[in-house]
Amino acid sequence: MDNRAIGMFDSGIGGITVLKEVKKLLPNEKIIYLGDTKRFPYGSKSKDTIIEISRQCVKFLISKNVKLIIIACGTATSQSLDILKKEFDIPIIGIIEPTVKYIKDNRKNEKERIGVIATSGTIKSGQWERKIKEEVTNIEVINEEAPLLATMAEQGWINNKVAEYTIKEYMKCFKNIDKLILGCTHYPLFERLIRNELKNNTEIINTGTKVAEFLKKYIEDNNLNNDEISNEYKIFLTDLDNNFNEISERLLEESLKTKIEKAEI
Amino acid sequence: MDNRAIGMFDSGIGGITVLKEVKKLLPNEKIIYLGDTKRFPYGSKSKDTIIEISRQCVKFLISKNVKLIIIACGTATSQSLDILKKEFDIPIIGIIEPTVKYIKDNRKNEKERIGVIATSGTIKSGQWERKIKEEVTNIEVINEEAPLLATMAEQGWINNKVAEYTIKEYMKCFKNIDKLILGCTHYPLFERLIRNELKNNTEIINTGTKVAEFLKKYIEDNNLNNDEISNEYKIFLTDLDNNFNEISERLLEESLKTKIEKAEI
Repeated sequence: MDNRAIGMFDSGIGGITVLKEVKKLLPNEKIIYLGDTKRFPYGSKSKDTIIEISRQCVKFLISKNVKLIIIACGTATSQSLDILKKEFDIPIIGIIEPTVKYIKDNRKNEKERIGVIATSGTIKSGQWERKIKEEVTNIEVINEEAPLLATMAEQGWINNKVAEYTIKEYMKCFKNIDKLILGCTHYPLFERLIRNELKNNTEIINTGTKVAEFLKKYIEDNNLNNDEISNEYKIFLTDLDNNFNEISERLLEESLKTKIEKAEI
Repeated sequence: MDNRAIGMFDSGIGGITVLKEVKKLLPNEKIIYLGDTKRFPYGSKSKDTIIEISRQCVKFLISKNVKLIIIACGTATSQSLDILKKEFDIPIIGIIEPTVKYIKDNRKNEKERIGVIATSGTIKSGQWERKIKEEVTNIEVINEEAPLLATMAEQGWINNKVAEYTIKEYMKCFKNIDKLILGCTHYPLFERLIRNELKNNTEIINTGTKVAEFLKKYIEDNNLNNDEISNEYKIFLTDLDNNFNEISERLLEESLKTKIEKAEI
């Protein structure tokens, strides 16, 4: 057992969708969340910049004595995970591997068509398509860059006309797919709007759910579970000037049980 | 006289709105345009990053033997102009000074209310408000961050429902102003939609027009005019993978008279 907290970071509010799923599945675990709101958005930054700022996030979480780190951000996972894993001893889990594992273990058709929607940086990195095709055969991947969505979520536009018509545009290429991966942790905020645009039998994959399932097994297999009953979480942001409280409470479906603190990194 | 070209750079397609106005007012001048599409958007990057990439753009244009440089980008002007002016001998003109001069010389009311809409980086820098208030007394400045618009323009969404509702949202705070500064060179692409949301007597200021007027006077005053009749322009982009041709032709209201070249910087 290991009673230290789980560390988690994202470019902003998106990772709260992962926090929510982890809380649900691992109610005994403490969580320390870092939202790098000062440097948001990651999706339009260069690979070098993302590696450097992800490294700073990892160091901050290590300084808080966490037992492992979840990169709750699609862009940081696709651009920096492989390098961070080599640089740090602490276990680091991104959002791609757990999702690819789920796709591999749950295929329904002999030939599947998988959609991936993500930030420009993530799609251009080609990581999703590469990792899926390394693990799963006879699969077609349809990629779509959505450069507006994370920013829209961060400014709280998740249910207005702008969000509705933006989702309509981005969903046009996904009319005939089996599964859609929400490749950025901000996108579950638009799940209802996305659902409206897809065929009924298209499965929408929230990577937060897959990360939580993967993490639960990882913690059990490695005997890292917290044996105190403690479901507290702490939230640190690098810039406090935003709508974080309101949107994260909407996401968590509860009022925040913690005071948000400023992270100096 | 000086028959070398005028250099100009932007994060992407936005600066074409400045190119258009300069061509109109200075039809004898050659222009070399650099669109830094590879690093687009600038609006969400840090000040240090913007200074570094603006410096690279200036060096590229100097290597093309230009006689002066226009920063046809609101974010690069607000974050890097003061520093670049100290670092380089070549004259560098941004979009703020010409616009502030126009506001100073053309006030209509004793107390004026000026709106500024720009990227998050530009608004957070406070440069517009500071420079306006340095030059003009008895003026109120209403600032609005528009983190979605430049990206929307760059992906060609300038006339669809998303653009329409986005403009509606961003214009809500400008219902009672005398002038609105389009503080990012991408925004004239939305001018028709913006016009629909403002009072009839609100003047919309396209910074490209003000830059062209300022530049004409600067060239005359400093005897830098081109005495050959040559209205050619060259376009360089740092990344060719985008809709640049289509949108810039729509903007220029003519087919591109140049082959776009890749700039390696």
